Amino acid sequence: MSLEKLNSRYAPFITIQEKGNKAGPLSGLTFGIKDIIETAGIRTTAGSRILSNYVPKNDAWVVKRVLELGGTILGKTNTHEFAVGATNTSSIAGPARNPRDPERISGGSSGGSAVAVGLGIVDVGVGTDTGGSVRIPASLCGVIGYKPTTGILPKSGVIPFSWTLDTIGFLTRDFEVLWRVVVNVTPVETRKVFMSKGGTKIRAGLFMFGEDEVSVKLRDRVEEFGLDIVKVSLPNLEKEGGKVRRTIAVSEGASYHMDWLNSRAQEYFPDVREVLSSGLSVTAVDYINSLRKRRLLLEEYVGVFKDVDVVLSPTTKMVAPKIHDVLGKEKEFRDKLVGITELFNLVGAPSISIPFLELEGLPVGLMVSGPPYRDGTVLDVAKYLISSN
Amino acid sequence: MSLEKLNSRYAPFITIQEKGNKAGPLSGLTFGIKDIIETAGIRTTAGSRILSNYVPKNDAWVVKRVLELGGTILGKTNTHEFAVGATNTSSIAGPARNPRDPERISGGSSGGSAVAVGLGIVDVGVGTDTGGSVRIPASLCGVIGYKPTTGILPKSGVIPFSWTLDTIGFLTRDFEVLWRVVVNVTPVETRKVFMSKGGTKIRAGLFMFGEDEVSVKLRDRVEEFGLDIVKVSLPNLEKEGGKVRRTIAVSEGASYHMDWLNSRAQEYFPDVREVLSSGLSVTAVDYINSLRKRRLLLEEYVGVFKDVDVVLSPTTKMVAPKIHDVLGKEKEFRDKLVGITELFNLVGAPSISIPFLELEGLPVGLMVSGPPYRDGTVLDVAKYLISSN
Repeated sequence: MSLEKLNSRYAPFITIQEKGNKAGPLSGLTFGIKDIIETAGIRTTAGSRILSNYVPKNDAWVVKRVLELGGTILGKTNTHEFAVGATNTSSIAGPARNPRDPERISGGSSGGSAVAVGLGIVDVGVGTDTGGSVRIPASLCGVIGYKPTTGILPKSGVIPFSWTLDTIGFLTRDFEVLWRVVVNVTPVETRKVFMSKGGTKIRAGLFMFGEDEVSVKLRDRVEEFGLDIVKVSLPNLEKEGGKVRRTIAVSEGASYHMDWLNSRAQEYFPDVREVLSSGLSVTAVDYINSLRKRRLLLEEYVGVFKDVDVVLSPTTKMVAPKIHDVLGKEKEFRDKLVGITELFNLVGAPSISIPFLELEGLPVGLMVSGPPYRDGTVLDVAKYLISSN
Repeated sequence: MSLEKLNSRYAPFITIQEKGNKAGPLSGLTFGIKDIIETAGIRTTAGSRILSNYVPKNDAWVVKRVLELGGTILGKTNTHEFAVGATNTSSIAGPARNPRDPERISGGSSGGSAVAVGLGIVDVGVGTDTGGSVRIPASLCGVIGYKPTTGILPKSGVIPFSWTLDTIGFLTRDFEVLWRVVVNVTPVETRKVFMSKGGTKIRAGLFMFGEDEVSVKLRDRVEEFGLDIVKVSLPNLEKEGGKVRRTIAVSEGASYHMDWLNSRAQEYFPDVREVLSSGLSVTAVDYINSLRKRRLLLEEYVGVFKDVDVVLSPTTKMVAPKIHDVLGKEKEFRDKLVGITELFNLVGAPSISIPFLELEGLPVGLMVSGPPYRDGTVLDVAKYLISSN
């Protein structure tokens, strides 16, 4: 099927436009860049009517890096408006559609990148992840989605949602392609921590598994892999992490969007306007208390790695729902979809979703997470699980 | 005069209690510790009725360090309640009184430390500085007051006012004593940057000098020192810095004090309650915008050091006012007193006030400030100005 035809059926792209053909370590790899990331001379809409004609003058750091290293960009991928949503149903390009079933959502907000990768249109999707926006669509579309430790990749040229939570991330079908991108694109400090456990048994802590169907089937499957499995308990992160993260995210989002919320409110999609507007009424004390609570929850989180190498959890506890069930209920689905992924954003952890299970023909991911700056461990364990699956 | 008699006349101490007699590089030096800094077994009141019976279990980092190195603590010094004020008139020990004239304020909030040093009771006053609380009383009491680069000294055991602005600082009569403290107490990174300009001329930028009497006389005096003098312009810092710093300080203060503001509001001094309560109504967006604005103002500030080594300014534009003029007008005097010092807190700069001028027998300080982490340059220039004065 032609690219145009695939795009009209699945809507992975907001703009199709090729760029880059240098020789380099990424030569031969094609990229889709989430349309919240600026590209010089190619419009960057953030999926929004507000920026529908915005053409940046400069490439974002990650775009520049990909082009310098020989990557070829095929276009700008669909995103939930301003990356503020997990369903990718609110976008000027329409809902991004699941590669397994175009009647279902892709998940988001980096939905277009996941769809383009899932359909085989590009090798690498570049996304951003503030509460799960790389890993959720990876889970629902059956691809790999990696969110590095928060702060290790420069965010210049990325339209911000939440300045302390936003992270660039990558989606691929194959681990080898992800590895090639990570080794070349991410800073040396990250590469250095890569390690192989060799003969040592991986100690994995199970977290956020419940008695729902997805949890039970994922856990059964995990137990076949010969890991040293323990249950880990993060009671405060589980109880308070979601509220704390959302307070931080909406406050920082409202700070960035304030002028538009005052002057162009009617141009936002209703669900996005509602989230961002809610940040206007948060008090400084609530925001500061959330920052302080984050520090305490980080201590709790880091503490579990005395006993385990990585934490395993479901990425999402559901497969992709149907688009017509989601429309008008974006908030309800968002809250369900981000419930696990967002906890790892709050603590700045490296976290990767890998395809692991199919339920009635629809994929759902397993998430591997580690302490901040241990991206290498997380990638090593993911590699082991993927190659043994 | 006996210590008790001096204390009843000038109120430098809230609690007189000796501690420490190890052998070490600080042996022979006596210290007064601001009563907002925790001391194991010695009550730490923060000048407040709320903590009037609080006896900490542990020493603050700076107290531990002073004791390990051989310093002798003579007691806990007077402070404006919770360090939230610049006049040191609101304290359970009563106003700290100026060593030159007990009818006048010491300035604050580290007023007791400045008074104890000025009277010769202790060699070193340990204070904290969030908007000028070390440098203002140094200026009004005729002693040296040094605020290091924000963040280089651990604040564990310091009752917070503003977690991103608070800094520990030191007050002394002699530069040699300050140097001995700094070299031994502060981290190696700070010591390393100490340098001597040798034969090179110091390039000094004048900032915040106006046509008022203090400015004119200070500038005339500065011009006698053979420095390379230029005027520096920091229009945005001057215009917006005060508002930005106060928004950050009251928001963070309200976050720490919220529970007491709800349950024990009547126990605060009225001026302190008013400042802290004002933080409850700041929005998260205003706070976040202030943090973002701080970054921009820091860029402007750091930019001037392409052309100068240090920035010189008046510490305060007034000598110590009379206590009976200040009572009931703490806010008005606070706003006047912090107008210059607070700008250097906002940008995290190393900043030192040195005795430089006398007007009708009352002292006023000159402030030497540098870019963050250039404490060595600031101290070197201060040393030159003191020794040539």
